[in-house]
Amino acid sequence: MIDWSSLSQQDRQQVLSRPAMQNARRLQETVGQILTEVNTKGDEAVLAFTRQFDCPDLKQLALNNADLNRLADSVTEPVQNAIDTAFKNIYDFHQAQQPQSITLTTTRGVVCEQHFSALDTVGLYIPGGSAPLPSTVLMLGVPAMAAGCRRRVLCTPPAKSGMIAPEIAYAARKCGISEIYLCGGAQAIAAMAFGTDTLPRADKIFGPGNSFVTEAKQQVSQRPDGAAIDMPAGPSEVLVLADDSADPEFIASDLLSQAEHGSDSQAILVCTSEQVIEQTVAAVERQLAVLSRNDIASQAMQNARYILTDTLQQAIEVSNLYAPEHLIVQITHPRSCLPLLTNAGSIFLGPWSPESAGDYASGTNHVLPTYGYARNYSSLGLLDFMRRYTVQELSEEGMRNLGPAIVTLANAEGLDAHANAVSLRLAKLEQENRG
Amino acid sequence: MIDWSSLSQQDRQQVLSRPAMQNARRLQETVGQILTEVNTKGDEAVLAFTRQFDCPDLKQLALNNADLNRLADSVTEPVQNAIDTAFKNIYDFHQAQQPQSITLTTTRGVVCEQHFSALDTVGLYIPGGSAPLPSTVLMLGVPAMAAGCRRRVLCTPPAKSGMIAPEIAYAARKCGISEIYLCGGAQAIAAMAFGTDTLPRADKIFGPGNSFVTEAKQQVSQRPDGAAIDMPAGPSEVLVLADDSADPEFIASDLLSQAEHGSDSQAILVCTSEQVIEQTVAAVERQLAVLSRNDIASQAMQNARYILTDTLQQAIEVSNLYAPEHLIVQITHPRSCLPLLTNAGSIFLGPWSPESAGDYASGTNHVLPTYGYARNYSSLGLLDFMRRYTVQELSEEGMRNLGPAIVTLANAEGLDAHANAVSLRLAKLEQENRG
Repeated sequence: MIDWSSLSQQDRQQVLSRPAMQNARRLQETVGQILTEVNTKGDEAVLAFTRQFDCPDLKQLALNNADLNRLADSVTEPVQNAIDTAFKNIYDFHQAQQPQSITLTTTRGVVCEQHFSALDTVGLYIPGGSAPLPSTVLMLGVPAMAAGCRRRVLCTPPAKSGMIAPEIAYAARKCGISEIYLCGGAQAIAAMAFGTDTLPRADKIFGPGNSFVTEAKQQVSQRPDGAAIDMPAGPSEVLVLADDSADPEFIASDLLSQAEHGSDSQAILVCTSEQVIEQTVAAVERQLAVLSRNDIASQAMQNARYILTDTLQQAIEVSNLYAPEHLIVQITHPRSCLPLLTNAGSIFLGPWSPESAGDYASGTNHVLPTYGYARNYSSLGLLDFMRRYTVQELSEEGMRNLGPAIVTLANAEGLDAHANAVSLRLAKLEQENRG
Repeated sequence: MIDWSSLSQQDRQQVLSRPAMQNARRLQETVGQILTEVNTKGDEAVLAFTRQFDCPDLKQLALNNADLNRLADSVTEPVQNAIDTAFKNIYDFHQAQQPQSITLTTTRGVVCEQHFSALDTVGLYIPGGSAPLPSTVLMLGVPAMAAGCRRRVLCTPPAKSGMIAPEIAYAARKCGISEIYLCGGAQAIAAMAFGTDTLPRADKIFGPGNSFVTEAKQQVSQRPDGAAIDMPAGPSEVLVLADDSADPEFIASDLLSQAEHGSDSQAILVCTSEQVIEQTVAAVERQLAVLSRNDIASQAMQNARYILTDTLQQAIEVSNLYAPEHLIVQITHPRSCLPLLTNAGSIFLGPWSPESAGDYASGTNHVLPTYGYARNYSSLGLLDFMRRYTVQELSEEGMRNLGPAIVTLANAEGLDAHANAVSLRLAKLEQENRG
């Protein structure tokens, strides 16, 4: 247990510091080579890497429609229903984010507009690994669908059998995704960023992944011939803010939900009650013992922090300093502190709002800024699948009204041609007037 | 004149290709060293670089308030009025972009919310160089003000005298910016990204600049200890879409407005009329001869493209392929083709809407995606100065309604602790029911 009040400024920073991401030079080079291979050799390179890492006998990258349907139909009814429930909530909440065009007359005869349009082609990456992640398919596929992106491409590494998890197929079909490609890792990111004979070039690439995927996304986002990406990524994290009204069993279960994601996950409890902290530590021990991912969660919990603060105000300051991806607020009046919580990706209010709710089914997106990025990046939403652009139209009257100010400003900046573009229009209007 | 119909696929790509950005290895290293210097030595390094590059006798980085006011007050009344006019239009248009919070009950007892909050500290970069750019101060300062960013920091390189252009001081004061720092280049970006004793650390850095500034922004955006940036940057560009109703003098003036920005600017005319193209070429020659920035504009116009298309539909396709930063539409019914124009940063409709209008005073922002980024990045707007985050609150009823689906999904993904966080809450509710 860490007593916040007793810490020096430096110790406080140390307590809230995140684990350094590994020295990336070697990773950078490896990923850079994979990108170059895929950029120059296209499908051939993607297939070769996929055979090497995932499925030795893979014949083609595209999952055919018959296989997609067969897999999707094999999902059990309870899981189908649960995915349907989650889909509906996520769809409704992202549909509610539909933006409005703006049209404003700023000066008589001068109309300014802001419009939104869906990105044309988006690439959705779904990691493979120990467990299938249909929830991530929904978190990327639903907003892409609601935004109206014309081509929605999903890449996920195949199993040795050459197939993907039935749950992923079902969730993808639910999101109207018909293009699924059997590849993963940096080679999948490269294929979506540059395009190949089989895969279209994506305007933007979304989704979580291992260090190769994260590095590949960073690299393609830096290249004009690459693609935009959703946001920078780091290990996942939760901060639970609690007072003496909180249930230690609930807190422990929320900390462990985070911990089982990965051994580098961060779980932090900031609490005004010494007793609640002690009981939480005990509850973590009990709950941890029976988890199937005990090894991963145990490792992560070794880096857990239990921070005691004097006041709720101080606890809120700690949370704002840390800027957590997930912030769970288990205090007597959780909503009252909402205006004070300035830095968090997603906030869970009260005892009945565990992180699991947002991870799966409440409707909010589970792709969130990690690693302190909550201070300057947004949680994933519909707008990330769209672009904003402006339109303007001046009438003759608009040109007459605003033209002189434009000429003055262009001259002040020494830009003759800018001034001239207006002056000769004003001269023409003058002429017309006289004519 | 290039006849689009006669070109092969490859030639078409070639015609629309942008000039390659220079091999950046050397630049990367130089900028990397400047970043390291500033990160380790802070103010001392920033001052040293500024004395080396800009003002040998500079005493301190902060522009004091008395100097700010003295400079601002020295601006002539016509220029003050023009800045005021532009400020008002830009402010109104960005205020109109204020987003609404969303609150939605997705399932009985499950409330999902999306909120917006202003970024706390933003860094605004205003280049120095041959001409002062008060318009850019407005384009960054106004949305930062309208968004409500608490600290708005402006960096701009000082003249040899240690002062800045009066117009920049006036525009900054108009935007309520009280923190102006006299530094430019990569050292200014580094100072804002990492913070120094004098400068606060910015959450996000905005604004245009030379290749050092652009490279520095890219580098700090890749570092967890750095800052977010507005968007990637390349040379500025315009595409004019015209038919036989267009005025060649107007077109020429618009192409040249772009050309005078820099020798690497791109100006492209796509037109259905051979005669209009010929007359535009002649008008460009005439107008170019009398420009004060003739040398820069001439160089840029050497890379201009005049593309003839068979139909308007084909011209629109060319524009969409190129994805221009600025798109000027001078055809008989300009608004009719708006729904077909899928890729552009800002669109200017009709003969009375020159690029200059949007560059200075109509109300739209002149910070726009260049270099083909219009396909996947947005024009700068109020939302870029805010972050979105979500909130959720489940009541006991919400937990009862949604809990079982969450447990099913967590189990399908093999995440016990996620399931447990819900199961033990459901068990507690069960207990309460019985109790």
